[in-house]
Amino acid sequence: MILTVTLNTALDLTYQVPALRPHASHRVTDVRERPGGKGLNVARVLAALGHEVTATGFVGGPTGRVVQEELTAMTGIVDALVPVAGATRRTVAVVDARTGDTTQLNEPGPVIAPAEWSAFQEAYEGLLAGADAVALCGSLPPGVPVGAYAVLVRRARAAGVPVLLDTSGEPLRRGVAARPDIVKPNATELAELTGSHEPLQATRDARRRGAHAVVASLGAEGFLAVTPEGRWRAAPPRRVHGNPTGAGDSAVAGLLSGLVERLPWPDRLSRAVALSAATVAAPAAGEFDRAAYEELLGRITVAAEITAA
Amino acid sequence: MILTVTLNTALDLTYQVPALRPHASHRVTDVRERPGGKGLNVARVLAALGHEVTATGFVGGPTGRVVQEELTAMTGIVDALVPVAGATRRTVAVVDARTGDTTQLNEPGPVIAPAEWSAFQEAYEGLLAGADAVALCGSLPPGVPVGAYAVLVRRARAAGVPVLLDTSGEPLRRGVAARPDIVKPNATELAELTGSHEPLQATRDARRRGAHAVVASLGAEGFLAVTPEGRWRAAPPRRVHGNPTGAGDSAVAGLLSGLVERLPWPDRLSRAVALSAATVAAPAAGEFDRAAYEELLGRITVAAEITAA
Repeated sequence: MILTVTLNTALDLTYQVPALRPHASHRVTDVRERPGGKGLNVARVLAALGHEVTATGFVGGPTGRVVQEELTAMTGIVDALVPVAGATRRTVAVVDARTGDTTQLNEPGPVIAPAEWSAFQEAYEGLLAGADAVALCGSLPPGVPVGAYAVLVRRARAAGVPVLLDTSGEPLRRGVAARPDIVKPNATELAELTGSHEPLQATRDARRRGAHAVVASLGAEGFLAVTPEGRWRAAPPRRVHGNPTGAGDSAVAGLLSGLVERLPWPDRLSRAVALSAATVAAPAAGEFDRAAYEELLGRITVAAEITAA
Repeated sequence: MILTVTLNTALDLTYQVPALRPHASHRVTDVRERPGGKGLNVARVLAALGHEVTATGFVGGPTGRVVQEELTAMTGIVDALVPVAGATRRTVAVVDARTGDTTQLNEPGPVIAPAEWSAFQEAYEGLLAGADAVALCGSLPPGVPVGAYAVLVRRARAAGVPVLLDTSGEPLRRGVAARPDIVKPNATELAELTGSHEPLQATRDARRRGAHAVVASLGAEGFLAVTPEGRWRAAPPRRVHGNPTGAGDSAVAGLLSGLVERLPWPDRLSRAVALSAATVAAPAAGEFDRAAYEELLGRITVAAEITAA
């Protein structure tokens, strides 16, 4: 079983509007909603790949009930979300039908009480016992200590469970210091962590800070992976156009499924890049296009990075 | 008891953002939610004025449950909403903290099945028996016939219950032809109905189309009322700055409470203008500031309109 942790779950709403004009009133022409927060996106992709997945994190209030109902209606995901008194947040993606551009509005999430954070840690400890790998994903809701991911990384390592961390800012900085197996920053997160805008240098620096392997997502250029087994660049055969929402989460699912299947790094990277590109190509935000994934999978370029150390 | 009808109820969300920039990602700094749809706003103000109020209309899905829970938590409003299979819509008002401007996003609402519309009409008929007045407010959800308000106006008149209609477009045009006691269009709705941008002429034309009394809200200029008892202009003593959301609904509550209390027209108009201005002045969208209301009430100018017919 793969465990995904989403401390700041969400109900993701996507609104289509003919054209977004600030300070005007808009009739929303299409509304879609689905459980969100990066860890739940990862869980969904893992389940679609045929893995057993358990989703944990926090959930509360009427929006939380909807998240749980919609999550359990999906095959293969076991709901181990921990109830809290506050209400799960919504995110709203407003898609301008004219340009295809998206304007994102993210509610902050419920305030987590110290007792709720303790209850979560206890549940997490229990879930680790049955986990082959764990993904810690996304932002922290208010009230959760900024060092939360460092705590969760240490527990996973103490339990002998490989752990991937995908977050940003100070929670990433502290989490990296706890020595996770994999971190998957994008270019901005990596620069923020290391102070360097040069990906190879920054990726190496992130390893020095504690991460065993760093897989940096560099947008259309694909991924740069620096691992104990070697360094690679992986890229799709062509630039894929579409909505990048969830592409990073699909990549996490690719890396983690490859890890538990004990695939060599180049195969894990191919899967991550193909899933990521197939997510950009899918019409619905955050879903991946299975046909595109299968077609792309054999056509990913993975090149060993042989720059002098 | 005053009956308010809200066929397209909503959960109104208000998001504060530091500054709204299209195609960017925004952290929402403050989230407020409350039951919405114009008729529920009217019900809330009537209840605050001490009137017995029953709210009907459609409600469904998880968002509908929240609307009902939050509505019944308020004093004085009896919940007579009719359940439907579809989900009650959300509206999102994005307030730019820098400028105070609001960008509005309105979901369309659930599709109402013919059997649900029939069930509503039956419930409405029963509720009319105990009503002193009825307010028909807001847009129609998909599936409800465009002549719905005309049907509901006729039923109210047949039951001898005074009926106020506050809607726009074709539902207003058809509703007016069914001879409601009062319509309360704003300048845009009035021009759309009559083709005239000259308020006095347009207001008279709206009466010729069937409305017994027309109270046109002309924004900062106050109201123009053309009734069987006379014509008046009513305006606040000063321009009130703030958020106009719900100001029209507060005015409807003022007119309707004045009607059931058998106040003369000038007093009804003073109340409508004072409530409307006190709603603009209130910090929370759609609430009215009671102190501002009481202070303004004695200071509204109501002048008989003596232009030659």
